[in-house]
Amino acid sequence: MNAFEWYNPTKLVFGADKVGQLGELIEPYGKRILLVYGGGSIKKTGLYDDVMFQLRNIDATVHELSGIEPNPRLSTVNRGIDICRTEGIEFILAVGGGSVLDASKAIAAGALYKGNVWDFTIRKAIIQDALPLGTVLTLAATGSEMNGNAVITNWETKQKRGLGSKLVYPRFSILDPKLTYTVPRDQTVNGIVDMMSHVFEQYFTLTTDIPLQERLAESVLLTVIENGEKALEDGTDYDARANLLLAGTYALNGTLPNGVTTDWATHGIEHEVSAIYDIAHGAGLAILFPNWMKYVYKERISKFVQYAVRVWHVDPTGKSDDEIALEGIAATRAYFTRIGAPATLGEVGINDEHLERMAEEATQFGPIGSFMLLSQDDVLNILKASL
Amino acid sequence: MNAFEWYNPTKLVFGADKVGQLGELIEPYGKRILLVYGGGSIKKTGLYDDVMFQLRNIDATVHELSGIEPNPRLSTVNRGIDICRTEGIEFILAVGGGSVLDASKAIAAGALYKGNVWDFTIRKAIIQDALPLGTVLTLAATGSEMNGNAVITNWETKQKRGLGSKLVYPRFSILDPKLTYTVPRDQTVNGIVDMMSHVFEQYFTLTTDIPLQERLAESVLLTVIENGEKALEDGTDYDARANLLLAGTYALNGTLPNGVTTDWATHGIEHEVSAIYDIAHGAGLAILFPNWMKYVYKERISKFVQYAVRVWHVDPTGKSDDEIALEGIAATRAYFTRIGAPATLGEVGINDEHLERMAEEATQFGPIGSFMLLSQDDVLNILKASL
Repeated sequence: MNAFEWYNPTKLVFGADKVGQLGELIEPYGKRILLVYGGGSIKKTGLYDDVMFQLRNIDATVHELSGIEPNPRLSTVNRGIDICRTEGIEFILAVGGGSVLDASKAIAAGALYKGNVWDFTIRKAIIQDALPLGTVLTLAATGSEMNGNAVITNWETKQKRGLGSKLVYPRFSILDPKLTYTVPRDQTVNGIVDMMSHVFEQYFTLTTDIPLQERLAESVLLTVIENGEKALEDGTDYDARANLLLAGTYALNGTLPNGVTTDWATHGIEHEVSAIYDIAHGAGLAILFPNWMKYVYKERISKFVQYAVRVWHVDPTGKSDDEIALEGIAATRAYFTRIGAPATLGEVGINDEHLERMAEEATQFGPIGSFMLLSQDDVLNILKASL
Repeated sequence: MNAFEWYNPTKLVFGADKVGQLGELIEPYGKRILLVYGGGSIKKTGLYDDVMFQLRNIDATVHELSGIEPNPRLSTVNRGIDICRTEGIEFILAVGGGSVLDASKAIAAGALYKGNVWDFTIRKAIIQDALPLGTVLTLAATGSEMNGNAVITNWETKQKRGLGSKLVYPRFSILDPKLTYTVPRDQTVNGIVDMMSHVFEQYFTLTTDIPLQERLAESVLLTVIENGEKALEDGTDYDARANLLLAGTYALNGTLPNGVTTDWATHGIEHEVSAIYDIAHGAGLAILFPNWMKYVYKERISKFVQYAVRVWHVDPTGKSDDEIALEGIAATRAYFTRIGAPATLGEVGINDEHLERMAEEATQFGPIGSFMLLSQDDVLNILKASL
């Protein structure tokens, strides 16, 4: 096990109708609120009205930034930063899925920084201060509700990059499983893939003697696999939605990576794909991850054997490690296909035109990953195998 | 799954030689430090010198409270409170195991309260403010390093009671597995039982549809069971000590009980036993828990079947649920015995003299537990079965 630090000050408020606590949760931070949301589905579902009721109850002055894109854009983040500065915003309330939350974190950090918020993503500056933010989550997927990370896209340069700081952990996150009842099927699928991929990035590691972290990761995977299918069968199954929501939070709230060298190469590759093609993050991960697995599994086959047996219940009797490992990877692909996720870049309309550029961008700071260190050529091979 | 809130702001600093960061971790909180520790073993191991070196480096003024008992006493806590008030203490540093940490939390809360700190344990007052505290943990057991709870004993009235508040979460906890190398065998054993018991209290629940929480709990149990035996075989096995230390933290840092109705009856009973007889908490739990299990398992036998199969790998083929459940309980007792924990009250010198009083005290606020609600008679039955 490696040395590590763990710190996560987000207050999670989980359960049906917990939006009713929103007013009291915000009140300590101020009354000048920036409300950030996406395409307006929260107006259809009535959540917008519930939120506004809470904000009126504490006499808040509310400014709105709506229309956050699925891959939130730098230009949108900058609009939010402008509102914060002009209107003296004291607190940012993000209502939506991971994109809305990520945009809000970038706005929170950018609002108190004199330079361009993009600086944080290219390591030109470190976040020194940020406005406080809170969230009402409407989609189980990114884990952004309980961590200090965000991903935004610079559409002009076609770059998708991350920023992170303990200063942008949400002060609170409200997780009501009922708010995810209306998530469309494709977004539920993308969320399932996203959560599983987060676990993969922390589970496939060369770090040894981490039995607890391995089992915790397997616990999250098994929960997502089982409850993902249940939620797709019946979108209003409270327990399935609740289990999925909670698993998504545990997948990326710092519970799993303690003492572990994590990978994140596949996320890096996917970011380059979706920066150019604007496909859903989950769709990109579904296409890429099994191909990454096949490319790297021999680096430590025992890990993939364990994965096959514990997560997919592959019967190892009479099989070679190679066969067991490949059966686990095939089970991963089969699950993704069964729930309706794409398996090839071709299925989402991507050909080989920009693969070299993606591989180059993904490795611009050097080789990526840790389970296997991937060079530009390695990344290109994985992308080609995904066509 | 139930609704819940989760908030844990403790910063965990985990790894070999992390005491070297102590100075910088304390510095933001002030220079007037109360150093709290136990019987002086930290002087033998050199940890005391390392801590003092760190404190000198930040020009701290250090007052000491040593001699914290294994079941920390109200009178000792009051001595600490007096020092805090007299010397204008700004930060409390607890160096030791759970008892030292618990005493420090009580001191932190009591120092800023005008009444008797015991008020917090008998629900006469709620903690409104507390001095900040940090910890250097030397024993894997209580989980006190990453939660807001403490247990203290009033030796005059022979009462052992808990207090809790988010205000007494340690600001940081340093966990160096090497600091646990010198833990004596019996204390390692007690720690193992304590950690497993914490999980039991959260795992044996009537709450349904909690697949993630169940698996997380099983993950911690399996890790403790495997690594407990390894640490007993070789006390300087870094990975075994590290896994045990981390498992102990996860067992009681709020990871497991989210959305779950927890039990805690057996802890309540044990507190009455050790309040009168001053036995080690872990020893008391080892005696009581399998007897509690046998008394309650029929309330939801499926839970005990799952426990037997997943945790103790009981082969269910051709067996009744009753047989499987009882085999799991027997495996628990066998493990405790194998590592050297006591199985009966008689073994630790306790006869039936005070059992009625224990049962009465344990249920003084009404029936206890949730898996099965235990009346005074039920508690007495469990105590008698433990003789």
